[in-house]
Amino acid sequence: MTSASNDLSAITNTLTDDVSSWEGKNLISVTQMTTSGILRLFETAAAMRDLVRSKGGDDRLKHKVLASVFYEASTRTSCSFQAAIMRLGGTFLHVDGGKGGNTSASKKGESLEDTIRCLECYTDVTVLRHPTTGSVQQVALGDGTVKPVINAGDGVGEHPTQALLDFFTIFDELGLSLDVDNGNNTADNSHTGPLVVVLLGDLKHGRTVHSLAKLLARSSLKHELVLRYCAPASLEMPAHVKEYVQQCTNVKQEEYSDMSEAVKGANVLYVTRVQKERFETTEDYEKVKGAYVVDTSLMEAAPQGMIVMHPLPRVDEISTDVDSDPRACYFRQMENGMFVRMAILALILGAP
Amino acid sequence: MTSASNDLSAITNTLTDDVSSWEGKNLISVTQMTTSGILRLFETAAAMRDLVRSKGGDDRLKHKVLASVFYEASTRTSCSFQAAIMRLGGTFLHVDGGKGGNTSASKKGESLEDTIRCLECYTDVTVLRHPTTGSVQQVALGDGTVKPVINAGDGVGEHPTQALLDFFTIFDELGLSLDVDNGNNTADNSHTGPLVVVLLGDLKHGRTVHSLAKLLARSSLKHELVLRYCAPASLEMPAHVKEYVQQCTNVKQEEYSDMSEAVKGANVLYVTRVQKERFETTEDYEKVKGAYVVDTSLMEAAPQGMIVMHPLPRVDEISTDVDSDPRACYFRQMENGMFVRMAILALILGAP
Amino acid sequence: MTSASNDLSAITNTLTDDVSSWEGKNLISVTQMTTSGILRLFETAAAMRDLVRSKGGDDRLKHKVLASVFYEASTRTSCSFQAAIMRLGGTFLHVDGGKGGNTSASKKGESLEDTIRCLECYTDVTVLRHPTTGSVQQVALGDGTVKPVINAGDGVGEHPTQALLDFFTIFDELGLSLDVDNGNNTADNSHTGPLVVVLLGDLKHGRTVHSLAKLLARSSLKHELVLRYCAPASLEMPAHVKEYVQQCTNVKQEEYSDMSEAVKGANVLYVTRVQKERFETTEDYEKVKGAYVVDTSLMEAAPQGMIVMHPLPRVDEISTDVDSDPRACYFRQMENGMFVRMAILALILGAP
Repeated sequence: MTSASNDLSAITNTLTDDVSSWEGKNLISVTQMTTSGILRLFETAAAMRDLVRSKGGDDRLKHKVLASVFYEASTRTSCSFQAAIMRLGGTFLHVDGGKGGNTSASKKGESLEDTIRCLECYTDVTVLRHPTTGSVQQVALGDGTVKPVINAGDGVGEHPTQALLDFFTIFDELGLSLDVDNGNNTADNSHTGPLVVVLLGDLKHGRTVHSLAKLLARSSLKHELVLRYCAPASLEMPAHVKEYVQQCTNVKQEEYSDMSEAVKGANVLYVTRVQKERFETTEDYEKVKGAYVVDTSLMEAAPQGMIVMHPLPRVDEISTDVDSDPRACYFRQMENGMFVRMAILALILGAP
Repeated sequence: MTSASNDLSAITNTLTDDVSSWEGKNLISVTQMTTSGILRLFETAAAMRDLVRSKGGDDRLKHKVLASVFYEASTRTSCSFQAAIMRLGGTFLHVDGGKGGNTSASKKGESLEDTIRCLECYTDVTVLRHPTTGSVQQVALGDGTVKPVINAGDGVGEHPTQALLDFFTIFDELGLSLDVDNGNNTADNSHTGPLVVVLLGDLKHGRTVHSLAKLLARSSLKHELVLRYCAPASLEMPAHVKEYVQQCTNVKQEEYSDMSEAVKGANVLYVTRVQKERFETTEDYEKVKGAYVVDTSLMEAAPQGMIVMHPLPRVDEISTDVDSDPRACYFRQMENGMFVRMAILALILGAP
Repeated sequence: MTSASNDLSAITNTLTDDVSSWEGKNLISVTQMTTSGILRLFETAAAMRDLVRSKGGDDRLKHKVLASVFYEASTRTSCSFQAAIMRLGGTFLHVDGGKGGNTSASKKGESLEDTIRCLECYTDVTVLRHPTTGSVQQVALGDGTVKPVINAGDGVGEHPTQALLDFFTIFDELGLSLDVDNGNNTADNSHTGPLVVVLLGDLKHGRTVHSLAKLLARSSLKHELVLRYCAPASLEMPAHVKEYVQQCTNVKQEEYSDMSEAVKGANVLYVTRVQKERFETTEDYEKVKGAYVVDTSLMEAAPQGMIVMHPLPRVDEISTDVDSDPRACYFRQMENGMFVRMAILALILGAP
């Protein structure tokens, strides 16, 4: 694992505005991208949305085969990658290693490296989800594989395509400006002033909010970034995330316990689920739960331009009454998942 | 559920001969179609058969993605929809909610509406099967979805594509005339006199025979319709079906207990399975079972033009010796399932 | 079963150099092919490799649908058939009968013949794997099916595509000459002298090595064939295989217990796994296991031109240090699985 870690630092900031820097590469971590690389990705994702809306897709990845390998069920992540390759004319094989974590071969004692190396004999790119932190990185960066591997989530480690689709949604909905010297910047750049993002709910266990906080902080925005953490006691944002963010420039971190205070002047409200299992008693849970439900009365008090995001699935932390509010963008965020994954596949397979 | 029911009555008889009346619509119930709408569907299905036989398929649904979502296993229904979209150049995502009735998201407490709404972000049309009666209708007609939903069976509720493929098979095999003013009627119209349909076996529990009886009765045939119910005591056709049929015009209902009497002068023998579990004792079952087996001696006594249908799977209620009889049309009926579903997809996705 | 066996003898040596002899046929056993038929298949497989490497695939099987029906999990076999049909422009339906051996229909008591006959209504060719020896043959050669069936393994019976990909790998890696009168022979024919093949490991239970030994022995090679069996006591090659080989011309069989002796002068080292479960005590297993591990020191002593094969998955019978040795060809062998299956599908579906 140590050597694999070293390899990751060796590829930091190597995916850039130059599309050839993406071709044939693994996507393991958001740290691989420069800010201009992220902008290149976002512009490609926006073009994919135009493509899907106008024609449903095209054939640029015709005869490319994706291996969708999930050692942990994740219907949306697998479906969005599968739809992404198909809308670009390619196809996929799905390998479900989820029942007890094993394929027919891994049950016989085969290593993860060998399993992926074998599937690569039939395919052009692998999307891999695995419950063990660091496993995807190890497979991708070790000697055992020869085709690109895309990390679709490895335990409490990274899930880069989720963080990227979240960032793309904020970028796109608000019209952010990224600090890059790029003549092709097609963003509408309408957002002015600081970018105030409220992260709400269980901030302790949520890989999604950790990744998004770090990705926003490390990217060069042309806006001051204010991160507001609003969580129940005992579910606060962990110190290691706050320390990472602290080291980045142009970022302010704030703590809130009252949701209605946190949303004042906010541009983004990112909601996560508070799970019952995290509490010692049902009473503790019920007390907290009610305090973090986004409903129409919160939305009435919230700023007109504040978008509401959620990685989904939701249970009752956002009332369905809010769905028809134009600021509720969680289903658009879900759609963006496919567009961002189409862009990643196109870039990695050399047909952006 | 009440409001959803109201919505269903609002869309009764709205799918017509005009192909634009189908585009973008849900297909929840056979009551949505006028008789000329059914004829339009059947003509499209016949054209699909010609297409498959001559060229295997075409590309009219290229870049369309179908979500095949099954909360209850049904290999044939899912496979025939999947083959149908692929033979028209489209693709599919399959979501198996069958093991314990849950996807990874619904296990976390997500509503069925949210699950479907999320998948729609990647796809163009949803085929949904669910064990709860009324659930598909509720999802399709509520506010939670934005793309067309096709009902692939909801508990003891409707399974409209099964009823339509059964009706198409009778229409096509016999050359029925429908009472519509339509210059394009391509049926061969060879059938004359009344249409005598024997429904055989377990008529109490069979959703298939309930739906077919109602669909035949409500359609405007240019033939008198005679429905003969031939079932063991305690497995008779339920009163609610007979009352529905009673209200239709030009229909006669008859009861039989002796199979060889029932098939005299019949045009269609529709066989269903009598399941052991429906009887109190094994003796009761064995006694009845033998009396409802279609074999070569029955076929010798039956009319020359009488087709034999079965929704399949069969166990031993039709002897395999009958398979080579040209009147045995259950495998052609199975094929028609794909052609009818191709037609439905083409009409709903605007490429008939 | 007896009649089905008779049918098999009726189709022995019927798949020849003439591509029309393949069209629409079942592939149940390697005995169906003449040596010139095998050469035709190998030339087609080599052309498929060129196609995949240059363009990823083509559209010769456009609108063809494959039914991939597995009553026993085998990720690689199913994935390689699925990739094969997709790289030729076709599509597939996958039916997993593996959980308890049942589809939704077979749980209701449907026969295997009916299950396959139904799926054929939607598809053009069936790939079938089943745990019961002889079952695939019975389904394919009986009256119950009308489309071609390809045997993807039936219990301890045949798995012809595995044997063919193994033979193709030897043919291709070594440049064998086959004794056929064929102007189109594109093999490089570089191999001279006898062909010495070491079969290593558990030779008692391995269907793979039985089939390969028989296939090599029955084919007309322009080389003397030497088969060396190197197995732990109690896991030796069964008498029935040795008797079959004995009856073939131009073949010598030798027994070894010492691996380093067996590889002297060998052209092929075919490794199989020795499974712990085959031994009475753990000590027995550990003692034997160490003696049959292929590592870099064995490879140093082995001939320069000796290729190392393995059907995979491997556990530790081949050290991963060997993977980078150019003679290690098990991943190329895995790739050949797709190329050979592409060739078989193209020949059977009439588009070679």
